[in-house]
Amino acid sequence: MSPFPTHLLSIDDLGPAEITDVLRITDSFAEVGRRANPKVPTLRGRTVATLFFEDSTRTRMSFETAAKRMSADVLSFSAGSSSVNKGESLRDTIETVEAIGIDSVIIRHKSSGVPDRVTEWVDHCVVINAGDGWHQHPTQALLDLYTVRQAFGGGDVGLARFQGLQVIIVGDIRHSRVARSQISAYAALGAEVTLVAPSTLLPPSLDGWPIVAVTTDLDDVLPKADVVSLLRVQSERGSGEFVPTLREYTAGYGLTSRRAAMLQAGAVILHPGPIVRGVEIASDVAELPASLITDQVSNGVAIRMAVLFLLLGQGPAELLGGSPEGSPEGSPEGSPEGSTEDSTEDSTEDATEGSTGSGDRA
Amino acid sequence: MSPFPTHLLSIDDLGPAEITDVLRITDSFAEVGRRANPKVPTLRGRTVATLFFEDSTRTRMSFETAAKRMSADVLSFSAGSSSVNKGESLRDTIETVEAIGIDSVIIRHKSSGVPDRVTEWVDHCVVINAGDGWHQHPTQALLDLYTVRQAFGGGDVGLARFQGLQVIIVGDIRHSRVARSQISAYAALGAEVTLVAPSTLLPPSLDGWPIVAVTTDLDDVLPKADVVSLLRVQSERGSGEFVPTLREYTAGYGLTSRRAAMLQAGAVILHPGPIVRGVEIASDVAELPASLITDQVSNGVAIRMAVLFLLLGQGPAELLGGSPEGSPEGSPEGSPEGSTEDSTEDSTEDATEGSTGSGDRA
Amino acid sequence: MSPFPTHLLSIDDLGPAEITDVLRITDSFAEVGRRANPKVPTLRGRTVATLFFEDSTRTRMSFETAAKRMSADVLSFSAGSSSVNKGESLRDTIETVEAIGIDSVIIRHKSSGVPDRVTEWVDHCVVINAGDGWHQHPTQALLDLYTVRQAFGGGDVGLARFQGLQVIIVGDIRHSRVARSQISAYAALGAEVTLVAPSTLLPPSLDGWPIVAVTTDLDDVLPKADVVSLLRVQSERGSGEFVPTLREYTAGYGLTSRRAAMLQAGAVILHPGPIVRGVEIASDVAELPASLITDQVSNGVAIRMAVLFLLLGQGPAELLGGSPEGSPEGSPEGSPEGSTEDSTEDSTEDATEGSTGSGDRA
Repeated sequence: MSPFPTHLLSIDDLGPAEITDVLRITDSFAEVGRRANPKVPTLRGRTVATLFFEDSTRTRMSFETAAKRMSADVLSFSAGSSSVNKGESLRDTIETVEAIGIDSVIIRHKSSGVPDRVTEWVDHCVVINAGDGWHQHPTQALLDLYTVRQAFGGGDVGLARFQGLQVIIVGDIRHSRVARSQISAYAALGAEVTLVAPSTLLPPSLDGWPIVAVTTDLDDVLPKADVVSLLRVQSERGSGEFVPTLREYTAGYGLTSRRAAMLQAGAVILHPGPIVRGVEIASDVAELPASLITDQVSNGVAIRMAVLFLLLGQGPAELLGGSPEGSPEGSPEGSPEGSTEDSTEDSTEDATEGSTGSGDRA
Repeated sequence: MSPFPTHLLSIDDLGPAEITDVLRITDSFAEVGRRANPKVPTLRGRTVATLFFEDSTRTRMSFETAAKRMSADVLSFSAGSSSVNKGESLRDTIETVEAIGIDSVIIRHKSSGVPDRVTEWVDHCVVINAGDGWHQHPTQALLDLYTVRQAFGGGDVGLARFQGLQVIIVGDIRHSRVARSQISAYAALGAEVTLVAPSTLLPPSLDGWPIVAVTTDLDDVLPKADVVSLLRVQSERGSGEFVPTLREYTAGYGLTSRRAAMLQAGAVILHPGPIVRGVEIASDVAELPASLITDQVSNGVAIRMAVLFLLLGQGPAELLGGSPEGSPEGSPEGSPEGSTEDSTEDSTEDATEGSTGSGDRA
Repeated sequence: MSPFPTHLLSIDDLGPAEITDVLRITDSFAEVGRRANPKVPTLRGRTVATLFFEDSTRTRMSFETAAKRMSADVLSFSAGSSSVNKGESLRDTIETVEAIGIDSVIIRHKSSGVPDRVTEWVDHCVVINAGDGWHQHPTQALLDLYTVRQAFGGGDVGLARFQGLQVIIVGDIRHSRVARSQISAYAALGAEVTLVAPSTLLPPSLDGWPIVAVTTDLDDVLPKADVVSLLRVQSERGSGEFVPTLREYTAGYGLTSRRAAMLQAGAVILHPGPIVRGVEIASDVAELPASLITDQVSNGVAIRMAVLFLLLGQGPAELLGGSPEGSPEGSPEGSPEGSTEDSTEDSTEDATEGSTGSGDRA
């Protein structure tokens, strides 16, 4: 496995090898999620704090579920209940998080670059970007990749399919951190990305972006697409000022039933959610088998478990208390003692002889 | 035991047999609550989310305590910190909850019928109504029944007492989901319910309600009552517009010391809380032995544990890690291995032979 | 060990013997905090609620981390999401907390005396003051003492150094609950405290305060100080109205680089945080080795673990699952079975013979 970065700030922190590692390890955690008891002791004794300066039910719930499934303790802070009201600077909040001994801070902020800045104030605490302004939302891009790989065969088969895969990203590219992360992620695995948006919703410059093509004509590119990745019309981040009306947006860029019929067999539809039904996507299109929106959400938990594992975990031997990669269910080492949260290494007669438990840092 | 419904939306989902089952199982969980360590492994590996679109310290605290005592993981969301601010529809929030793999969502909403609607959007996730508009608050009615049964002897003795029991429900019937749930619950067990309220605080029609009697004269019915169930004056839901002044309300419908003296021996006083002292009930009346307000709160945790068990649990054999019903302390199967949160089935020599742990779904 | 009070409302509840006990027990919990897995089973089965009517990321995070490290369940409530909005009195909230069976409520409130009042409404539930108005913030004073003792040698050596130690407390004494707690705490251990503030930021009367000296001239006392304890300029509690401008405050009372150079060798700087850089303390002074601000935060978790242990714990034998005081790592009783969260007494063959687990109350 390739060495993983210390923090996860941007999808650009990961090369193709690291992205592939994340996807493979996610297979194990997705399997955990299908278990009757989806709890593993991997992060027992670790404390993770979510620090959300922007509202998000969806992302916070996903990260907190991931952390709790790994037996971490979770502290949850949102802007409303934090001390930012009394002039406490973000820096002091982070230095407190660090000094208290919290192992990872998962941060969402309306300003681009905040998670990067935060890394300057920490020594041990691992920073995970859960979305910063228009900049990046790396775990969203990773879960998109995982969902696409799964749709195209899973495992190495699905992975190989990224080479030359036709991906179109439709909507408000300009204000979208999701798009920025997606473009890099797809490009890293060899996919060919086309951006589709009205010119007002494209960024002023595409210098330095690894883009294959840009178009304003959705109908033109739709029939050739393997992956249609829709973006949310983000009224709160200014999308609305750049399109005349939502109806016009839908007319030009909404995935209507008419347009869905143009898709080739096997093409898939993604959306980071929450979807605005009838705007970016027709309600009945969102329910088609080609729509993987629900899979994205499910896979999001497994991706975040994999990311937490790679950033905070102890190394492969401790993953899931059994075999780290591939299919733990098939491996003899995936024994019951270590495979669920309530089991313990101390459970045999040898227990009294001094095993120090699964939570020790190497 | 009667089959329990999939969700708990309304007390009307339960017949007399199901209500009786809940009360009996609650006995076990009440016993757990009296233990030195009141934690049981019953819901280990399960995740429960509270989704409160109306503020409530009391009900949220009760449900979260219940879930944590059963070793479930709890995610807590309130309207303020959720994505409803950015146009995420309730439907998308619920579909996220479902896709993430959360086992149960406990929802409070200011609009009647929301929990019912929510069940249309879920497949595996169990919905529990923690109060919806003027409609229903089923766990409140159940904890009232449990408290009354306890006061009248407990067990089958207390249960039998519901036949012909004189229950008066006093106050803002019109806007009260608690009253709606209580009326059905008491009626199901054979009690005779009288509603007592100024005509403005009665609903426009009582068609379809299982009511024995209605009166505007509290003093008339008070001496014959076995149970006096007071309702809160809900300023935030419009009670205030229907009574001239709070003083007049108290004059006509408050349980003053004078009125408390009219109660027959053995009569009990209930209130769902929070009480507005000096309005619905005099402060010193609330402290009388006949007032079971504190018992209601304590019993609320046990009732919610029973409801979570019936909706999410594995079946009787796993309850409390010991015997499911009646008195676990007296049963030989209530062995230490299973009886506290930190014990484990893997603790004997046989552990390595493949027990799959207590958290597996049947 | 001296008997510990039932609640922790004020540092004045503790005499020198009790304060010394807290500091000694904190040594054990600080050691736990340095472990790979800093989780201990000490409070398993106990439920702690934080009830913060004033925002505080820092203090709430510290208490919640402390409780979770001890395996307690934590319920978290802030004013915004509580029922205070619908007229629920504080009393009813507390009576609910008590009736639900919550073991300890950690309360912060803008009004002085609220935690004292709360104790009148509870029977079993232990009240911890996390800051009330201008009155008290006892765990802050304790963590300051612990940090100073650590800086001056730790253990009994550091403890002995408090005799005659020159402590200056600088800033808004008038509105500071931290100062009130600090003064009593330092005085209890024999330190000599000098208050330094503009006259407008001193309280109208110092009657009954155990103070050695008061001055308005920081430069005069700085060279003799062993401990410089800065206070926050609390705009939200009215500091600003009592000083002409922040610049003038800094000119007279800020710990600038010029002033830091006047400190004697070995002197230490404390601040309860969050610091307002450039006002109470220059940014580079806050980074000096003499500045123990980060240590204060780290020690805060261990102090709060010790306080929770003393108020809720089972007695010395259960501390940390091993030896209670001193160095658990060196003691033979500090055996692996009890020393980490995931171990269990039931892990040997004898398990079936009836050990009731570590969580039982004596």
